[in-house]
Amino acid sequence: MSEPKYFKYDEAFCLESGERLEGLTIAYHTYGKLNASRDNVVWVCHALTANSDVADWWPHTVEAGCFLDPDKWFVVCANILGSHYGTTGPLSLNPATGEPYYGDFPKITIRDIVNAHRLLADALGIGEIHTLVGSSVGGFQATEWIAGEPERFGRLILLATDAKASPWAIAIDETQRMTILADPTYGERRPDAGMAGMAAARAIGLLTYRGPEGYNLSQQDPDGHQGEHRACTYQRYQGEKLCRRYNAYSYVTILDAFDTHDIGRGRGGVAEALARINCPTIVIGLSSDIIFTPAEMKKLAQSIPNAEYREITSPFGHDGFLVEHGQLNEILTPFINAKL
Amino acid sequence: MSEPKYFKYDEAFCLESGERLEGLTIAYHTYGKLNASRDNVVWVCHALTANSDVADWWPHTVEAGCFLDPDKWFVVCANILGSHYGTTGPLSLNPATGEPYYGDFPKITIRDIVNAHRLLADALGIGEIHTLVGSSVGGFQATEWIAGEPERFGRLILLATDAKASPWAIAIDETQRMTILADPTYGERRPDAGMAGMAAARAIGLLTYRGPEGYNLSQQDPDGHQGEHRACTYQRYQGEKLCRRYNAYSYVTILDAFDTHDIGRGRGGVAEALARINCPTIVIGLSSDIIFTPAEMKKLAQSIPNAEYREITSPFGHDGFLVEHGQLNEILTPFINAKL
Repeated sequence: MSEPKYFKYDEAFCLESGERLEGLTIAYHTYGKLNASRDNVVWVCHALTANSDVADWWPHTVEAGCFLDPDKWFVVCANILGSHYGTTGPLSLNPATGEPYYGDFPKITIRDIVNAHRLLADALGIGEIHTLVGSSVGGFQATEWIAGEPERFGRLILLATDAKASPWAIAIDETQRMTILADPTYGERRPDAGMAGMAAARAIGLLTYRGPEGYNLSQQDPDGHQGEHRACTYQRYQGEKLCRRYNAYSYVTILDAFDTHDIGRGRGGVAEALARINCPTIVIGLSSDIIFTPAEMKKLAQSIPNAEYREITSPFGHDGFLVEHGQLNEILTPFINAKL
Repeated sequence: MSEPKYFKYDEAFCLESGERLEGLTIAYHTYGKLNASRDNVVWVCHALTANSDVADWWPHTVEAGCFLDPDKWFVVCANILGSHYGTTGPLSLNPATGEPYYGDFPKITIRDIVNAHRLLADALGIGEIHTLVGSSVGGFQATEWIAGEPERFGRLILLATDAKASPWAIAIDETQRMTILADPTYGERRPDAGMAGMAAARAIGLLTYRGPEGYNLSQQDPDGHQGEHRACTYQRYQGEKLCRRYNAYSYVTILDAFDTHDIGRGRGGVAEALARINCPTIVIGLSSDIIFTPAEMKKLAQSIPNAEYREITSPFGHDGFLVEHGQLNEILTPFINAKL
């Protein structure tokens, strides 16, 4: 991850819950240049534990000739509220105490995360956004944002996501919370509290990100293998890897926010909110995704008036959106560049 | 669960690891009567946290007119080694110390579990077995048993299972172990050690047993719902429910045994071991099973010479085998009764 830029917002930031944060820092990345007519903005919303450096976590997208070509587009990505990567979150200092928030960080919603994005867009002098892009929890933000301001966006790209957190996705999150809470160090006022729990939670996440095909393809033991299974070391490795780069308070904050996702809240329901999205939209499902299944993604596309459904064939489950850049660029480069 | 019968084996029981248990108790159930020609035995192998009372955990199977009709068959099921339900396991007294084993219970394999079944069969005077039935980890035992003694069985019924633990299934187990180990009470010498960890592990299990369709069908919040999601209370409820009836030492013992499953070990590989199964076999997959996917189950059927693949349509994932008794009896009653 390269060093982000920071936007400081000095006023109170009101949360959907009624609570407020006294000031906000938003870490963000931009690629390319805002053109004179300010009509080349592509806003990318990142997923769960990612950061604002799209070029880092989404290989072969922010490159010349790819769909986020920085020679053409002014690509913006903001680190989400509550995260570990520079935007105000549980490890930030609570101005009321002068100590980090840790477990006292207020509960936030996907709508709060989007409201922070809007502050940054305003600060950057961005009005209309040519294309809004969101995959996974990034797509939660994208659907939420466009539901609130449908006139602001020219095109919408949704990958492996939903307009409302499903019972299945919420059950996955709750299981991860149960796992973190089984580690009694979670709650202690230190940045590395709850690490064993978070490692196991991440391992749960990985199961759902990769799915049966992904594991059976990449984690086979060699023939005649003795001793520990590769699948076991892989799970522990993935857990430890997250522990080296993230904190459990941010993790739980974002899981909680995930579960609040419902673009229909206060808007007459999901169907009504989706029906108001009138820009050209592409909805991409992944053939082996067990979180946002192709069947669910097709339903989402059918509920957006001007949407087309496309499916990427991949054995890598939900994580296919990070891996299958060839198919991704093939679908998205013409979509984002098409003259309307 | 009704009270099982108990078989006491007073000699040393040698494990595949070379360790030995000094004596063994095996809890078991039987239904119906062994006929004079002793050719009406149906042996059922149970799954992970189940018990020997098939009629209790598998509704509408051990009933007149159903495929395990006790008027016709002598149905036997033994509680597996390491379990919580009467067979020797981690809460049994270690004769060397006079205290329960807890975490000192030796590591066992699926092959050890099967060897205990064989002791019981011999003790009951059972030679040939008309039909061997196994679903899930029960199918691990069934494939292991028939691979070791192919001549002993007349028919084989496999539901949602495999001949070798897949990387995917092992990754699910390792994640559950990580979760239990995140609870530092696991390891304490008491029957309720590791309960928070086991509750979370069970919640992981449930995700994989039910899958996306199952959750999205049965755990939707009512319209306009406020407050906690139904999917969250469901996960916690399922975790707590297991804690009231099981212990974490048995749970880990059986997860560990699960991962050892490989009918090809010492038999020239899985393909060779499967090729030696020559009795009529039916392999049943469940349309929405994300643990033992239909694709994997078809492959299993193709690897057994005299096997037919049948698929049960169900939104309930892997747990469909417990739920879809209508389709199950429709497929299995003719299969088990057919004159050969």
